[in-house]
Amino acid sequence: MARVLYDLCGIDEGLRFSPYCWRVRYALAHKGLDVETRPWRFTEKEALTFAGHDKVPVLVDGDVTVVDSYDILRYLDRTYPEAPLLGDGMAESRARFFKYYAERSLAPAMMRTIVMDLLNAIHPKDRAYFRETREKRFGRTLEEFHSPAKGLTQLDAALEPLRACLGDADFVDGSAPAGADYILFGNFLWARVVSSADLVSNADPVHAWLERMLDLHDGLGRNAMRITDIQGAYR
Amino acid sequence: MARVLYDLCGIDEGLRFSPYCWRVRYALAHKGLDVETRPWRFTEKEALTFAGHDKVPVLVDGDVTVVDSYDILRYLDRTYPEAPLLGDGMAESRARFFKYYAERSLAPAMMRTIVMDLLNAIHPKDRAYFRETREKRFGRTLEEFHSPAKGLTQLDAALEPLRACLGDADFVDGSAPAGADYILFGNFLWARVVSSADLVSNADPVHAWLERMLDLHDGLGRNAMRITDIQGAYR
Repeated sequence: MARVLYDLCGIDEGLRFSPYCWRVRYALAHKGLDVETRPWRFTEKEALTFAGHDKVPVLVDGDVTVVDSYDILRYLDRTYPEAPLLGDGMAESRARFFKYYAERSLAPAMMRTIVMDLLNAIHPKDRAYFRETREKRFGRTLEEFHSPAKGLTQLDAALEPLRACLGDADFVDGSAPAGADYILFGNFLWARVVSSADLVSNADPVHAWLERMLDLHDGLGRNAMRITDIQGAYR
Repeated sequence: MARVLYDLCGIDEGLRFSPYCWRVRYALAHKGLDVETRPWRFTEKEALTFAGHDKVPVLVDGDVTVVDSYDILRYLDRTYPEAPLLGDGMAESRARFFKYYAERSLAPAMMRTIVMDLLNAIHPKDRAYFRETREKRFGRTLEEFHSPAKGLTQLDAALEPLRACLGDADFVDGSAPAGADYILFGNFLWARVVSSADLVSNADPVHAWLERMLDLHDGLGRNAMRITDIQGAYR
């Protein structure tokens, strides 16, 4: 049976920006598993009713439906044990830290930097939903929250341990990438797809890692459509 | 042959505050290995000449001398493979991130908060050395660097992923503590020994984890001498 991933898209069906969906796409590529991605937008909740969930990623793998990106990675490790993503025991417990580091340290810093670009990249029918849910979460308007100066300063501090790690090895998970790399990279790809902002200096070890990550799996990330590829879309 | 750890001490020989030495003491306790700790002060460089190194921890394990706390943890895993601390493969690569998170995110934030308490806890003969090396590192005087308000704000942000992790499991390394827990806890114990500053609110999941860590291995951390235990020493 087919393998299908419901994948968040923006103004163009090909513009895929969810950091959580990117984690899963890299995880599938890492396992050598094909997938058909199905474009989905924030307000298309009814399309996910079958999964008992209202957010992507949703992976349908034959008979099995799995929601939540981290749970999908665990499912993939259980079902396709070759080339572990998260691993077991201490490795898996530590992977969880990277999930929260991505979501609670990197994402908020990046969000402050690119939120207006993100709004612009979202399909017009989704924008009111996005604004309402995020303004509630941030406790202020998107315009008030938006502060590239603050965001980049916050990001620079948050990246310090990653920077040091990448002085020791080419990837967070060692000499080859695995789950922790994909989890972190999802956030950078999210920003890259919707914005042309430079998040890290090209002298930063994080920059060299990003270049390596972009090249993986036949350039999966490098070939991803960006807002700047759509004529007249980037403002 | 005896197992000896050279361990940094302060105004009192019993006041042991090095976060790196604490990592090793917890690692040894985790493996069930006895150790004789030998008090050492910053300026006693000649006492470490035998190790070809000028900083503690230095572990002498029979015929073998190992320096650097992370390398000591790796050595212990290789030599005493029961109850892994760092583990192998992805687990070990990920452990490295915690080392840098402790050293580059947590330590600077804590240092800004407690540096004057730390200076006060250091033996008078070491204070000029400490001031000179740290002022050079910080690019300003200790008094200028000292800012509990900034340090605590920085620490609060840096702790966000740890806080979230500890909502999922009792320890960073899962249901039982291991290397990542000890690496991070070393920094908190460093601050606890030299200062009475409250670094985290008692409603914080990090606080509950600290309490669990203090109780481990027969209260190794809880029973450690603090500056406040020495009459007239805390000012």
